[in-house]
Amino acid sequence: MIGKCLENVREKTPLVHNITNYVTVNDCANALLAIGGSPIMSDDIEDVRDITAICTALNINIGTLNKNTIPAMFEAGRISNELGHPVLLDPVGAGASRLRTKTAKELIERVRFSVIRGNISEITALALGGGTTKGVDADVADKVTEETIDSVIAFAREFSIKTGAVIVITGATDLIVDSRTAYAVKNGHAMMSKVTGTGCMLSSIMSAFIAANGENTAEACLAAVCAMGICGEKAFARLGEGDGNSTYRNMIIDAMYNLTAKELEEEAKYEVR
Amino acid sequence: MIGKCLENVREKTPLVHNITNYVTVNDCANALLAIGGSPIMSDDIEDVRDITAICTALNINIGTLNKNTIPAMFEAGRISNELGHPVLLDPVGAGASRLRTKTAKELIERVRFSVIRGNISEITALALGGGTTKGVDADVADKVTEETIDSVIAFAREFSIKTGAVIVITGATDLIVDSRTAYAVKNGHAMMSKVTGTGCMLSSIMSAFIAANGENTAEACLAAVCAMGICGEKAFARLGEGDGNSTYRNMIIDAMYNLTAKELEEEAKYEVR
Amino acid sequence: MIGKCLENVREKTPLVHNITNYVTVNDCANALLAIGGSPIMSDDIEDVRDITAICTALNINIGTLNKNTIPAMFEAGRISNELGHPVLLDPVGAGASRLRTKTAKELIERVRFSVIRGNISEITALALGGGTTKGVDADVADKVTEETIDSVIAFAREFSIKTGAVIVITGATDLIVDSRTAYAVKNGHAMMSKVTGTGCMLSSIMSAFIAANGENTAEACLAAVCAMGICGEKAFARLGEGDGNSTYRNMIIDAMYNLTAKELEEEAKYEVR
Repeated sequence: MIGKCLENVREKTPLVHNITNYVTVNDCANALLAIGGSPIMSDDIEDVRDITAICTALNINIGTLNKNTIPAMFEAGRISNELGHPVLLDPVGAGASRLRTKTAKELIERVRFSVIRGNISEITALALGGGTTKGVDADVADKVTEETIDSVIAFAREFSIKTGAVIVITGATDLIVDSRTAYAVKNGHAMMSKVTGTGCMLSSIMSAFIAANGENTAEACLAAVCAMGICGEKAFARLGEGDGNSTYRNMIIDAMYNLTAKELEEEAKYEVR
Repeated sequence: MIGKCLENVREKTPLVHNITNYVTVNDCANALLAIGGSPIMSDDIEDVRDITAICTALNINIGTLNKNTIPAMFEAGRISNELGHPVLLDPVGAGASRLRTKTAKELIERVRFSVIRGNISEITALALGGGTTKGVDADVADKVTEETIDSVIAFAREFSIKTGAVIVITGATDLIVDSRTAYAVKNGHAMMSKVTGTGCMLSSIMSAFIAANGENTAEACLAAVCAMGICGEKAFARLGEGDGNSTYRNMIIDAMYNLTAKELEEEAKYEVR
Repeated sequence: MIGKCLENVREKTPLVHNITNYVTVNDCANALLAIGGSPIMSDDIEDVRDITAICTALNINIGTLNKNTIPAMFEAGRISNELGHPVLLDPVGAGASRLRTKTAKELIERVRFSVIRGNISEITALALGGGTTKGVDADVADKVTEETIDSVIAFAREFSIKTGAVIVITGATDLIVDSRTAYAVKNGHAMMSKVTGTGCMLSSIMSAFIAANGENTAEACLAAVCAMGICGEKAFARLGEGDGNSTYRNMIIDAMYNLTAKELEEEAKYEVR
């Protein structure tokens, strides 16, 4: 089934509007092309209205948000909602600054997101302020382990019900949680944390997956998470002597380019929780 | 002759001022260094005046235009015109949003461009609004084929006469058209469309070619287009198992770095139309 | 001793706040990860206050400064000074435009920098305007040679005393100069000038070195300069047929990822002047 999700991306080549940070934007564009989508970047409020209208999904990443791009995020989100396009939020650094936390929270209030994808500290920062996280202790905020996974899923489910979005929490174990389903994914490699923007790239390709897979948003997210992790594994296996994180980055994107639906099906390591 | 154009770039190492998008800017900088030029990026209106004055060409790329960079584009264009520096326009996404189309059109009205380089839909979007494209049908707007090539050249020639710029339309077949000459180039590889920014990179190196080759603008553009296409071919030939679009990007720039005038002469596939 | 400086980076994984240009920012982030630090980018005045507070060093690079990011540079510098965090200035293009020269000079007046790192023309542009450089002739401004090295060191020392910063001048020979010490480094490779952003990357990793090495700022700078140069050498040695500046860039960052304290100690080529 997740293989089919990838095939749908390749067949439909969804055009994804990215309002994203300037640190990892090039990798996001090449990752989208590699997986079979098509990228367009635009972050001026006057420009985003038309651009988001010709796309089939919107990816909002607040990694280098500023006073000019924040209004464009709201406006693009508003229009995408009107048009029924799926919208993904990547709340980079939520919890690390008041501006990021506040912007992400306001976006969630005013825009209907199909997916919110972040690491555990970003997601808890967003959910905590809303008073919905009384069951979340410090351990949960720090990492997902066998001991904490059930309480993290419960917390993510509550956040999903509140927001209407599929909640994707990435880390050593990745979680995809909505009101009914929860997947735990074990693909990936620790070295991915030594490449800037693997999370951003995942959000970009995930936007293509949700654009191409209709109502099956949770499954599309699962497919994207497994694809990213498998590519991290395949790229790691190709590293030779002297190679480091820059070559690894290139090989991760290369792996996306070559990933087949069959490989995605066979190498995915996930369980339904 | 086009080999000589490359030698002139290598000898003069033209400093090119780029006002360009943040998606592909790093590749544009490394492509310029690879081909033998030198890049500088600056997009604040207070800064562009001095920067463009110390350069020998200006490359305006509207890929992520915004309310701060648009005035800088006009101001840098004005000053470059005053100083007699060649100016190139890459109207990324013209036709896709009103802001892009309007900005590109106003730039063409107020700045004298030596070259306008885009894909067929961008160029038609700019020429159509001016009422000069009555002969251009939908087929022409979509692609350049053996059947449509003569009408595309006629349309580009009209646009060239109107604007005073050499018109470069890139795609499977690339066209370089001015009032007197038309070249059709067959170099390149389809996989280049899977790398973000090959068009942007071409505009950057083309700016160096026109800066280094005096009045021979059309020929300088031909040299740049052939160089880009040959590098796409040479890079493709180097790809190994498991390589994808990220490695391909690196190899395209590497190929520019190693391209010789002799190779450019021998491997160029073009005809005068 | 410089090997120990690298070990301290790897142990402390300093989080470095970068306000930097969008041309080379991705390479700066991956270079920081490669050397053992951790990058965060933020350039909106509302955001930088919180971000710089959670970091242990601040790197201000004016490569694509604009009216929005300039106030953020001052504010982040002010707060970092209050918190006692080391701050590094990379005055990209100082001397090339009035805005860059003026901004860099005002930053030096209002922010206490631990390190100012630039090429010889950038550093002279900043010191000259202050009237402190009467002993600096045109030769000095152009390059560092065996004949000029002593006068460059004297000039840099004067600038260091005036600013309180360690002055790092990079080129074929790199100099690290403060009020008491001067190091001349001979590592590196000429091809590094064909990769955009090697200076920016050096400033980013240097920020991690000074963050992790307490009061030994000059030695931390020496370690960073030697590390960058050695990585340029090691990467060059790995280049194969057909490789160019893009692969070289990747291999430089890869070399940082694999650099050991022992290699840094053994391959450093520097002398105390």
